Formats: sequence, structure tokens, C-alpha cells
Amino acid sequence: MVCGYHAHGKLAQESCFELYFRKLPFAGGYCLSCGLEPALEWLEGLRFEAEQLDYLRNLNLFPEDFLDWLSQLRFRGDVWAIPEGELVFPGEPLLRVQAPLPQAQLVESALLNIVNYHTLVATKASRIRQAAEGGLVLEFGLRRAQGINGALAATRAAIVGGCQATSNVLAGQLFQVPVKGTHAHSWIMSFDTELEAFRAYAHTYPDSCTLLVDTYDTLQSGVPNAIRVGQELAEKGHVLAGIRLDSGDLAQLSIESRKMLDQAGLTQTRILASNDLDEYAIAELKSRGARIDIWGVGTNLVTCKDEPALGGVYKLVAASDHQGELRPRIKVSSNPGKSTVPGIKQLYRAYSGELVVGDVLCLAHEEPSLQNGQIGSTQPLTGERKTLNYDRLEPVLVPVMEKGRRLRPAPDLQNCAKRSEKSLQSLAPEFRRIQLPETYWVGLSDELLSLRKKLLLEALR
Amino acid sequence: MVCGYHAHGKLAQESCFELYFRKLPFAGGYCLSCGLEPALEWLEGLRFEAEQLDYLRNLNLFPEDFLDWLSQLRFRGDVWAIPEGELVFPGEPLLRVQAPLPQAQLVESALLNIVNYHTLVATKASRIRQAAEGGLVLEFGLRRAQGINGALAATRAAIVGGCQATSNVLAGQLFQVPVKGTHAHSWIMSFDTELEAFRAYAHTYPDSCTLLVDTYDTLQSGVPNAIRVGQELAEKGHVLAGIRLDSGDLAQLSIESRKMLDQAGLTQTRILASNDLDEYAIAELKSRGARIDIWGVGTNLVTCKDEPALGGVYKLVAASDHQGELRPRIKVSSNPGKSTVPGIKQLYRAYSGELVVGDVLCLAHEEPSLQNGQIGSTQPLTGERKTLNYDRLEPVLVPVMEKGRRLRPAPDLQNCAKRSEKSLQSLAPEFRRIQLPETYWVGLSDELLSLRKKLLLEALR
Repeated sequence: MVCGYHAHGKLAQESCFELYFRKLPFAGGYCLSCGLEPALEWLEGLRFEAEQLDYLRNLNLFPEDFLDWLSQLRFRGDVWAIPEGELVFPGEPLLRVQAPLPQAQLVESALLNIVNYHTLVATKASRIRQAAEGGLVLEFGLRRAQGINGALAATRAAIVGGCQATSNVLAGQLFQVPVKGTHAHSWIMSFDTELEAFRAYAHTYPDSCTLLVDTYDTLQSGVPNAIRVGQELAEKGHVLAGIRLDSGDLAQLSIESRKMLDQAGLTQTRILASNDLDEYAIAELKSRGARIDIWGVGTNLVTCKDEPALGGVYKLVAASDHQGELRPRIKVSSNPGKSTVPGIKQLYRAYSGELVVGDVLCLAHEEPSLQNGQIGSTQPLTGERKTLNYDRLEPVLVPVMEKGRRLRPAPDLQNCAKRSEKSLQSLAPEFRRIQLPETYWVGLSDELLSLRKKLLLEALR
Repeated sequence: MVCGYHAHGKLAQESCFELYFRKLPFAGGYCLSCGLEPALEWLEGLRFEAEQLDYLRNLNLFPEDFLDWLSQLRFRGDVWAIPEGELVFPGEPLLRVQAPLPQAQLVESALLNIVNYHTLVATKASRIRQAAEGGLVLEFGLRRAQGINGALAATRAAIVGGCQATSNVLAGQLFQVPVKGTHAHSWIMSFDTELEAFRAYAHTYPDSCTLLVDTYDTLQSGVPNAIRVGQELAEKGHVLAGIRLDSGDLAQLSIESRKMLDQAGLTQTRILASNDLDEYAIAELKSRGARIDIWGVGTNLVTCKDEPALGGVYKLVAASDHQGELRPRIKVSSNPGKSTVPGIKQLYRAYSGELVVGDVLCLAHEEPSLQNGQIGSTQPLTGERKTLNYDRLEPVLVPVMEKGRRLRPAPDLQNCAKRSEKSLQSLAPEFRRIQLPETYWVGLSDELLSLRKKLLLEALR
């Protein structure tokens, strides 16, 4: 496609694309934006090396003048974005990319790849964190992610969304996030007895020892042996950090284990559970009185098992005409929900006190009052109109890249995680609950709605 | 855990682990082994660099003598494996890793990560290829994979499993596989009219032009404009390669489009369809008479939407005792299906003519006759016993790495794809159909069954 733009004199045609999704994943009420920094890093690094150009040359599809042009190509566009950890809803641009058409087009697949997956996992992690109701959530997904780098992406997004630590030590190093882990069954099996194995592990990690108790029999063997080692640690002034349950009825086993630990005086020893956990399993275990302090969540988090893809799309919303003027563009679909919203936009989020009350998509030149006002907006599909009264209106999209250069250093991942937590607190419980949430309001400003109607009519004429 | 082995004098303890899964994904009848080469590459490259050692040192968890040891660590084990593209069933070792315990343990997560995902996607691709019944299948999943490298893994596995080309140009370069693609809606929208956009694209790619016809209205606008351009190409001696349907009722639209193309003389122009396709959607479209020649499959392939993780595990099957003798080990579970099968094994596949009739797991030292024989085996869970008569018995696990060095160069990916095709043909249709397949026989040899019973009894004593 880029070769076609090159061939047809469209190298300088200005364009604006928006990256957004149409539907919330997990039948949930919100998403958390994630993946911006890796996306910007990718944009800054974009270039075609000699080896890649040779490969393209050998495909016999591309003329030499195009390959020459490609060898010089850098991304030199402007990007506005929703910061990582901020709430985002259907139809809202996570990224707005303005650049000459071939540049903006070339980056589509990579941006979608990065932002889709990160946003999906951050959102999933936040749901799991909510279900854990204050319990610690650890990301344990390395073995079920899409390759080593897929696992790193998963960890990064999980931390932004609310996981407090990871078992992926490389991710710990790269992103400076806490690492936590336990031993495997093979540790136990490599010793003659479970007790011997527990003692050896406690000897190596006297102050951070979590013992996996289900290798032979959780309540008959694992927990009693762990208690014995815990008491031996206590005699030397240490505390057995935890036991880990990894199979069976985690609710029942945790209740029994808690009793046994408490009776033995090991009240500070915490119970970690793992095994096919997600927000639904955790909520169910909680409802049955499970005494689990720490949740190790792997497969269902990194694969987002119940909805493993966010359907983000990247659509042209404006392009310059023959006179060089940037004009809004629309794509019409026979499925009305898939027709695009044209024009270069800003997203405003209305606050009443500490809570968000609704979002309004405006054209970028509109300047609604940011303090103590009201703003009308309409949902294009239903025609429903609503006026939001607000104390504060916040522009959500911020400039992050100008002419291909990042405008600020990458934020610390813990700051993104804090932003997630704060964003989520600004959302009333009925919108953020994990099952059957209410629908948060997102409308189009009057001017944007008129523009869309006009372009729809023109396209269908 | 490795630090614990170091601290407890287990650096030289010999061990053997097997990587296997317990359940076939997608309620299917088989899996195709995949991911071996990336796994071996990872093993060969394993080392801890200064920066990583510094990071570990700063965690304040590990003593200096352990970090010293880690700085010298290389993987020096022996690996046997099922070659890529070969059939594999539950309980069968995809990899068998024999190495000193700390080495074999350290590589667990990475091996699981690589082999789980590759095997899952190769299997999914093969199911989709089956559903396409001879139609061409293209991998279109870049935008929904787990990061850039996740997408590369997806493409590699999809090619092994049966996809004939990819839209991921980097994967095309790295794996030397064909690349195919079309343009996006934004191509059309950047021109004043659809016809102008189609003409421009055809001008750039006169001999490989596939036009996306659903930007405005497929049958009223897209197909008629594509036909006009196809006829203009024909006048200059070219053939319009294809049209692409990406929304709406793909069966109905393809039938109508085929009629219109044929009536205009464009009988060689092929119809490509995309939009949330998988093996079930393709089978349904086929059953409704869809005239689709080429299937572009993305999200549901790379995420394996209906089952996004293969539950592969990595279990200790033998470890040396205090006398240095390698002894079989078992892990007992209260869930009988999760108790392991101990001992170092070889897998034998029985052929009758060109068809496979069953698999038998044997202890590695067993030497069943490879020609014209019969072999008894038992399924440990049900106790069902069966005698397989065979013309040919094939050892499926082959040595691939010795003392950390690969025994052969990486096979060409197209050869792995051919192996997949051949393997699948050796499986009778009732075992390979995509819905409600019969269960293929996998049993334990008499000697292996006895060993397992003995160790189970000892463990429960």
C-alpha cells in the first residue's frame, strides 16, 4: 500500500488516523489504556536496514526508487494519546496519529499489535485485582504466553493494570518491578522426603520461604510438614512467609490450612493460591470464605482466556485534499456500528467531585469550558442525548510525540500502576464491577455529530 | 530453586524431565508438535550476562558463590524430542531433557512458553487448513498477537501447521515463507473515489492486485468497480488476481460476486475472504456454498480464541539417588489424571500400511521389534488394554541435542510444513476431523505400567 502511495504522488498527503476499539472486553464496564510507551519506542526505532531492503528487493514487487525512499524513511509524525493507566471506553482514540499518509499507514499493524494486547491485559489484571479485594496479585503467566517477548509484554501490562509482582525475573529486571516466586513440585521430588525438601528450601530462604504443599497430600503431609519447618524457623527468629496451594478445592483447603497454621502459632504465614485463577474463580472462592492472602494468576491473565483479543482498529479520520487542506473522512459500513466518526478529535472527561460522569468526543478545535459547566452530547447509534453537568472537564488526549520525537521520557511503570488505581477509583462501583456493570456514557459533541451526519449523507448519495 | 540446589550440593544430581500436555485443545483429536527449533536455539543461547547478574545481586536473595556459578552456567544437557510437524497426543513427551538438576530446572519456563504456544497454533492452523478443503489459507494475525515477537512465533507455527503464506513481512524475511496481502480501507478513503483508488492499486501491482471491495457497498459499488478495473487490466494483458470480502454475509456475497465476476469474463479472479474466520466459520461458510478461494485468518488463529493456552507441563521423571544412580520418580496427585508417569521413556508409533494405529509409551531401554509385530499396552486411568498389530513401529523421540549442542542444523520451515501434511495424512479421518473426533490410542507398555503401579504404591504407603 505504501508503495502505491509512493507511485501515486501521495508521499506528502497529510493524514490523521485514530486507534480505538468498538466493544469492551470481558463483558466489562471499562478498559485501562496500556502499551503507549512500547508503541512510541517502536515508532522512534522504525527504519529499514540493508538486509530488510534486500529482502524486499528480492520479492520483485517493488521498484528501486521506492526502496531508496524506504531506506530513508523515519517516522516523523505527531502523536496524541490517552496516557497509560487511564480509563478508556469504546470509540475513544487511544492514539491519534497525524503524519504523511505513507508513514501513518506503515505503522498501523505494529501499533495495533502493541496497544491491543497491552490494553487487554492491563484491563484483565485490574479486574482480577478488584476480585482479590485487597489481596496481593502476582503475575505467573510466563509459561503460557506467546513466546518470551509475549510474556514480557504480559508482565508489563499486568503491572500497569494492578498486579503487584511477577514471577518473570527478566521482566523484573527490565521494568523494575518486584519479583516473587515459589518452588516447583520437582524441588520436592528431588529430595528423599517432603520434609527434607522443605527444610532445605527454608535454609536457603529463611525470610522469604513459601512452601508448595500439594506434592503428595496437602492436609495430611504438606501442611503438617510446612508447620514443622515453620516452627523450626520460628525457633531461629524467622517467619515462614507462606504456603502455596496449587490443586484441589482451594476454598476448603485454605480454610483448613489456615486453622492448622493458626493453631500452630504460625499466624503470620500467608496462604498463596494458584491453579487456573481469574477474576471469576477468585470471586467464587471469596464467596465461599476462602482464606487466601495471595493470588498467583497465570494462564487466564496472559491469554485473557475468556476474550483473548481486543478488537482495536486503526481508521483514517482525515486526509488532505488536492489543495492540501486536511479534510475529515468517513468509512461507511452496512453495519451502522462500524461506520467511523470522522475528523480530528479531542476527548473530554467530565468530573463531578472525584467521580467521572461521562465522556464527550469533540472536534479538536472545539474549546468547551473546563470548569463548572455543562456539555450536551449524543450517542450516534441510539440517538440518545444527554447533558453532563461538571465541576471539571479534562482533555484526555495529550501530545506525546512531535515530528517523530517523544515529548517526555518514558514514565516509571509504578506511576502508570498508580494512575490505573486512581482512574479506577474515579469510576463509580456500578461501572467498574466485574459482572453486569452499567454502561458509562460516551457521546459526540453537537458539532461532531453534525459533521458525521453530513459526511454520511454525502457518502450514501 | 536453582539457588537452593546450589546450596544443597545438588549441582551434579542428574535429572530427567518430560514436557507434555494432558488434554487435546479445541476438543480435537490430535496436536502437531511445534516449537522445537526455537526452544533449542534458546537453550544454546542461555547465559547470564553481567547486567543480569548485577540485577540478581541487587535483589539481595542470592549469595555471591551462587552468582559466580551462574555466570559460568551453560546448558549442557541432552535433549530428545518429537520433530516439528509430527503428531502428538496427551501424555507424550514433546521434549525429554536430561541434565544436571539445576540446568534442567532453570529452563522449564522458557521451554514451556515456547513449545506450548507453537504447538497450539500449529494445531489450530492445521484444523483451519482442513476446514478450507484445499483452499489457500493466509495468516493475517499480526495486529492481534502478543507483541511483535508473539506475532512472529504465531506466523512460524501457523506455517508449520498448514498456512501457505503470511501478511507479516518480517516473518516472511526471517522464516523465508511467502508473503501475501491486500490494501486497507484507508487506501480507498485516501482517494476521491473507489474506482480511482482501485485503478491506482492495479497500476502499481498489475499482476498481483487484490481489491478490497467493501469500503462503501460490496455488490453495488465494490464488485462493479473491481470488474471495471479487471477488464481494463485484461485489455493490457493482465489478470485481476482477486477481490477481498471483509464484512457482511461472506457466503452470500461470495456467491453473488462469483456470478458477477464470471459474467464479466473474470473467471480467473479469485475471491479472498477475511473477518473473524476460524475452522468452524469456514466449515459453516463452505456448507452454505460459499465460493471463497482464499481464507485470510487472523485473530482466531493467533490467539486460538476458543482455547488460548495449551496446558503443557514439565515434570521430573527421574533423578539420581545418593549413589548417583538415575531412578524413576513420580508425583502423586489426588486427581488421578495428574499423577505422573515415571521413568525415562521412548514413544513408539505403530503403523499399519500408511495409517497410524496407536502409540505406546515404553521405558527407554525396552526394545520392541520394529517390523511386523504386536505390542500390548494399557491406559493407566481406565485400565483398558489393547494389543496393536503393526507392519512398522517407529520410535518417535529422536536425539536433537547432546551436551548442549544441537545435533543437526535447523530444518527448513517448509520441510516441517510438509511433515505436518504427511503426519496428518497418516491419521485416519475419524481421528482428525475437527468436530467430535474419535480418540486415538495411547497406552503404556507392560513394563512401564508395572513401574508406575509400584511407585504409586510406594508413594501412598
